[in-house]
Amino acid sequence: MQIVEELLNGSRVALARAITAVENEYDEAVDIMRQLYSHTGRAHVIGITGPPGAGKSTLTDKLAKEYRNLGKTVGIIAIDPTSPFSGGAILGDRIRMLDLTLDEGVFIRSMGTRGSLGGLSRKTSEAVKILDAFGKDVIFVETVGVGQSEVDIIKTADTTLVVLVPGLGDDIQAIKAGILEIGDVFAINKADREGADRLQIELNAMLDLNQEHMDWRPPIKRTVANQSEGISELVETLEEHIAYTHKSGGLELRRTQRTKSELLALLHEHLSRRILGKLDDAGQFETLVASVERRERDPYSVVGQILNDLMK
Amino acid sequence: MQIVEELLNGSRVALARAITAVENEYDEAVDIMRQLYSHTGRAHVIGITGPPGAGKSTLTDKLAKEYRNLGKTVGIIAIDPTSPFSGGAILGDRIRMLDLTLDEGVFIRSMGTRGSLGGLSRKTSEAVKILDAFGKDVIFVETVGVGQSEVDIIKTADTTLVVLVPGLGDDIQAIKAGILEIGDVFAINKADREGADRLQIELNAMLDLNQEHMDWRPPIKRTVANQSEGISELVETLEEHIAYTHKSGGLELRRTQRTKSELLALLHEHLSRRILGKLDDAGQFETLVASVERRERDPYSVVGQILNDLMK
Repeated sequence: MQIVEELLNGSRVALARAITAVENEYDEAVDIMRQLYSHTGRAHVIGITGPPGAGKSTLTDKLAKEYRNLGKTVGIIAIDPTSPFSGGAILGDRIRMLDLTLDEGVFIRSMGTRGSLGGLSRKTSEAVKILDAFGKDVIFVETVGVGQSEVDIIKTADTTLVVLVPGLGDDIQAIKAGILEIGDVFAINKADREGADRLQIELNAMLDLNQEHMDWRPPIKRTVANQSEGISELVETLEEHIAYTHKSGGLELRRTQRTKSELLALLHEHLSRRILGKLDDAGQFETLVASVERRERDPYSVVGQILNDLMK
Repeated sequence: MQIVEELLNGSRVALARAITAVENEYDEAVDIMRQLYSHTGRAHVIGITGPPGAGKSTLTDKLAKEYRNLGKTVGIIAIDPTSPFSGGAILGDRIRMLDLTLDEGVFIRSMGTRGSLGGLSRKTSEAVKILDAFGKDVIFVETVGVGQSEVDIIKTADTTLVVLVPGLGDDIQAIKAGILEIGDVFAINKADREGADRLQIELNAMLDLNQEHMDWRPPIKRTVANQSEGISELVETLEEHIAYTHKSGGLELRRTQRTKSELLALLHEHLSRRILGKLDDAGQFETLVASVERRERDPYSVVGQILNDLMK
């Protein structure tokens, strides 16, 4: 395919078009991914997550700049929270650092939920693979929020950076616990704010409780991203983590796990498409929905029937 | 089934056991749901969501108390953010209002993610159905956060209450837009805080932009939940919404939509279980994963092969 050749030869236009094909589920998307697949597996994928208001975009931009200073090329995929109804990325137009967007060595892309449940994590992991095949050394996947779908997206990463911020109120305890175990590295951003010490102490205490069987104790770094403080130290720590997982075999384990989930997710998607296609052809689905709605039948026996009809 | 009979006769023990069966995917869960299904469809299901720190639990508790004062029975399902690895609801032990937990007319249950992707929204909707069949008049489903999975859970609701709070920082704009379209009623909680006026103005402006084709303009109510301010007015508004959707046919539409999504989700789940079962029996899955990992094959052709082998 021409687009794949151009992309592998370094065309940013082809790169952008390939991601668009994946995002909008164009017919060519599967072929693109098929042909790119053997060129993947080289990039260091860094997931960045944390509660809203933690300053993740600014921090990501500064980290990207620091990696550029170290001579590495960078890709950024920013996952945007989107409406379940209208679709479309609402942060798509947010303003990233201007000198970053002018840098040919950096590619930034916003992605939002459009399709079905789980579609976004599949599309994100495909966009990561495209950037990987393109040759980006470091790829950031930045998510807003800490729900299950964000966690699924973050599983795309080799290293997960959890960004926290002092003084976010009562529910923060819950959030911290929810994302505690996915963090390989923690950053306390806006660390010049009141409460940074307390947050660090609490976080340390929670990490101590959690680390029974782990060799890598997630380090906590302080940053003030909008003043570029603590950025190079944080990059060092991220690099230490990837080096550690390389050596310990953890990276391989994580990537196998990821391959498994991706296969399953893909299977899911293709299956339901085929089955719904068959049901729709027969006009069967609406009839079944109506009978369930009238409580004449229950959903469980309906699903059982569909499966028995369709599978060997 | 005995548990179903007892539940329909008002046994709280049977109610709790039924939800546990669903949550832990006990074998009996499907049979319970099958037998309860025809008894569902009567409750008013109210979803409550909003960013962390908005005071959703306190507000939910106060709303529950107000509904009790109006002579209605209440069920509360609190969705807890949980670790993707260890499982288990981390807010399960949080302290709700004592007089509420002592009230026989109120049933409170925390649920956390344990299983697969999408599992939580299915389990939540099943727990709602159990409470519905039990005879609860009003069922609250309270979620933390505003990710895609929370949105999926909120789709279980007849009325969605979005709780916002003044002064949550920069990313709040994004959150507001993300959940703007799912809100039927908005509450500005902690409305005695600075910034409540500005939040209300902003929210009004955003709602005005969004309401092109809608007859129901989501009202914005102010509350100070921990001082019980604005609660009865909020309940009135929630009641107005359900009455409106009843009359307009919107409720029926929403419930049909919900039945559809539930059937699809169930289909998804049962399908992958069957397919994985078959693949595991043949020891095939690990082999396929390994070949994809070595980049000998790509995930897309592997999935195509699996599907062709399994389906007629």
